[in-house]
Amino acid sequence: MTRQTTMLNAYVPGAGHLSPEDRALADRRAAALGPAYRLFYETPVHLVRGEGVHLFDPEGNAYLDTYNNVASVGHCHPRVVEALARQAATLATHTRYLHDGILAYAERLLALFPPDLSHVMFTCTGSEANDLALRIARAATGGTGVIVTDNAYHGVTLATAEMSMSIGPAVAPGPTVFPIPAPSPQNYPDGVASGFARAVTQACDRMEAQGIRPALLIVDTIFSSDGVFPDPEGFLAPAATAIRARGGLFLADEVQPGFGRTGTQFWGFQRHGVIPDMVSMGKPMGNGYPVAGLVMRPETIAEFGTKARYFNTFGGNAVAAAVGLAVLDVIRDEGLRQNAASTGKAFADGLRALAERHEALGETRAAGLFLGQTILTDGKPDPARTSRLVNALRENRILISSTGPRGDSLKIRPPLPFGSAHVDQFLTTLDKVLKAG
Amino acid sequence: MTRQTTMLNAYVPGAGHLSPEDRALADRRAAALGPAYRLFYETPVHLVRGEGVHLFDPEGNAYLDTYNNVASVGHCHPRVVEALARQAATLATHTRYLHDGILAYAERLLALFPPDLSHVMFTCTGSEANDLALRIARAATGGTGVIVTDNAYHGVTLATAEMSMSIGPAVAPGPTVFPIPAPSPQNYPDGVASGFARAVTQACDRMEAQGIRPALLIVDTIFSSDGVFPDPEGFLAPAATAIRARGGLFLADEVQPGFGRTGTQFWGFQRHGVIPDMVSMGKPMGNGYPVAGLVMRPETIAEFGTKARYFNTFGGNAVAAAVGLAVLDVIRDEGLRQNAASTGKAFADGLRALAERHEALGETRAAGLFLGQTILTDGKPDPARTSRLVNALRENRILISSTGPRGDSLKIRPPLPFGSAHVDQFLTTLDKVLKAG
Repeated sequence: MTRQTTMLNAYVPGAGHLSPEDRALADRRAAALGPAYRLFYETPVHLVRGEGVHLFDPEGNAYLDTYNNVASVGHCHPRVVEALARQAATLATHTRYLHDGILAYAERLLALFPPDLSHVMFTCTGSEANDLALRIARAATGGTGVIVTDNAYHGVTLATAEMSMSIGPAVAPGPTVFPIPAPSPQNYPDGVASGFARAVTQACDRMEAQGIRPALLIVDTIFSSDGVFPDPEGFLAPAATAIRARGGLFLADEVQPGFGRTGTQFWGFQRHGVIPDMVSMGKPMGNGYPVAGLVMRPETIAEFGTKARYFNTFGGNAVAAAVGLAVLDVIRDEGLRQNAASTGKAFADGLRALAERHEALGETRAAGLFLGQTILTDGKPDPARTSRLVNALRENRILISSTGPRGDSLKIRPPLPFGSAHVDQFLTTLDKVLKAG
Repeated sequence: MTRQTTMLNAYVPGAGHLSPEDRALADRRAAALGPAYRLFYETPVHLVRGEGVHLFDPEGNAYLDTYNNVASVGHCHPRVVEALARQAATLATHTRYLHDGILAYAERLLALFPPDLSHVMFTCTGSEANDLALRIARAATGGTGVIVTDNAYHGVTLATAEMSMSIGPAVAPGPTVFPIPAPSPQNYPDGVASGFARAVTQACDRMEAQGIRPALLIVDTIFSSDGVFPDPEGFLAPAATAIRARGGLFLADEVQPGFGRTGTQFWGFQRHGVIPDMVSMGKPMGNGYPVAGLVMRPETIAEFGTKARYFNTFGGNAVAAAVGLAVLDVIRDEGLRQNAASTGKAFADGLRALAERHEALGETRAAGLFLGQTILTDGKPDPARTSRLVNALRENRILISSTGPRGDSLKIRPPLPFGSAHVDQFLTTLDKVLKAG
């Protein structure tokens, strides 16, 4: 497999058809932010406002957002903004004083999990949550070995970047990190469930041969950066059994699939009939406010908790709790999980129907409003064509990106209030763009 | 030196004189948040509202805040809350689209630094900023060795916790982390400046003897967790020269002293006449909103930036930028740095005057509104008496904590609008508490 050497869908500085105003912004970015930042698209998008499933440029043009899973209940949702503003004006301090807010939120959140997962800790980012999970797993197991998929993304701290092969070859896997092939039928032709579990066992064999004890199997339960692999439901359960048989823990990274996006269930791991030892959460948790967290079994945190306290200055502060609670209220009151299920099914059905008329459209993989769509040329996955399609859609004011180790699939994960009219707009535009070549 | 084995000023579950309501909150915390969380004080404080330099309990009692440096421009400052609410209602998306907000903020922030420090990257927490700095230092130097002070605190990610000896013995220094004694006159009786620089050189010798190349000297420029060591001004410059002579970089951790707190200058490193290679920022940057960052020389980020892109989902988002800009506006418009200088001087003078009447008050160390006050019994530093004093002040509705490897000093760092009346209230209460024994 050829691995990407640069970021998917990244702007090449100096290229594109930028307006003088946008060119000035790009130049100011290079001057002030330096070389590690990237913009999206051949021609970057300049945004000034967001509302529902739309983002707007300075001229007031609306872009249909089929990419941003952070503003999951809709951009700038008024109930979330109101909760944010009210709590920020009242009290914004940390977790070393007694306050009802963090407890009200923690209890509401934990009620969404199986009873075994009864403790929650709060951080600001998914990176911090996965990084903390690694510390806890080391304390709980006495091991250090970590198994990830081979185009995984789990964060940007030093420890989690070394567990994130999708960042590219400049960041090598850590010495205790063992990547295994993602759970696709191509990688495991004899069956994903048994094959993926066998890969976990073989990775344990390899690490133990090097004197490294297994600590953790960590997977994004929708495998977003690997290319989106939701099916068959249940395939993760044998892998969880396999890591536990070797003394390691199973962590479900729900930063991408969590909070109702996969439709039939609130969390991605629930589609697989398995109860993880830890669950990390992030992006949609505060609809844009920096809040993330880690849910765990009491026995998992016991060793770490008695020896090494944890304090995160902003994590679980009163504002984060108020915002998180408002997000849960909106998901429930607006039926967003149910909408993800029904609209997601219509979306996948629509893509499959369109595929009958366009040879470029290969496999559609979907769970709720998380979809991966392979793009083909002459029956073979085509990263260059995928990239052209992403940019053509952007020129038609639909925001999207690509995924997979070679970038040969569209990654579709809109804000959850996405409706059937938005699906129609997407499919009509995709049809037009494909017809144009 | 006896190192603390538990957290300074931590509540012991089950102890204290909690009301039934507060006891219920503490029990709910234990049930939902697990064993790694800690509360402050023998009797924890229950807070529901903040305003200026005060925090309030459910009965409306006001607590004078001499501890919380996060709400640096005052709890729930209306201009900051207004900027937060307005931007959150308008656009809250990330750094891969063009937006003026992040640039307006980046440019305002960079204007507060020497011109050599011309790039900024944004994260959500100081932990993430220091963690990123380590990744950048490794790329820039080719080394991995890190020098820290022996009761340092630099964060809670796996990599930064291993650089944070103050967390306690449960978290061992990383294999490439080399602690040196903090820059106190007691540790370096022949002169702090030369002694601290020599300790850096000797740490480089030790790491190179183990085949580890120096990457980074990282210090909190006020040495908050080490016990607060601001003087003599300039003592850090030879240490920076020493690490650079061995191929390493010098990072000023301004998470605690930055944003005007030290009074005469905006950043702690400026008191030492040295220009760092990188500067990390956090806590007060968003007055409670999770925003942090890292400023650096272009040559420092060049290697990392060309190979390994960096993306932080929430870092530098449009809301973070608007909040950060409002904080800078308030510091400027309300003259908070100047107030830190004048009120801080009055505070230190008042403590030294009070020390003439109380043998318990030893050395006062201060720069602006960052003060360390050693507590003595029979002329010797007394951690137990310090702890009793912290709790007695809390009973008198003054919030404070302790610092230093043994916890023998009061740590005083109030919100910056602290005025002379608040200093008087503190000194009067301290006098009363000391008289009571």
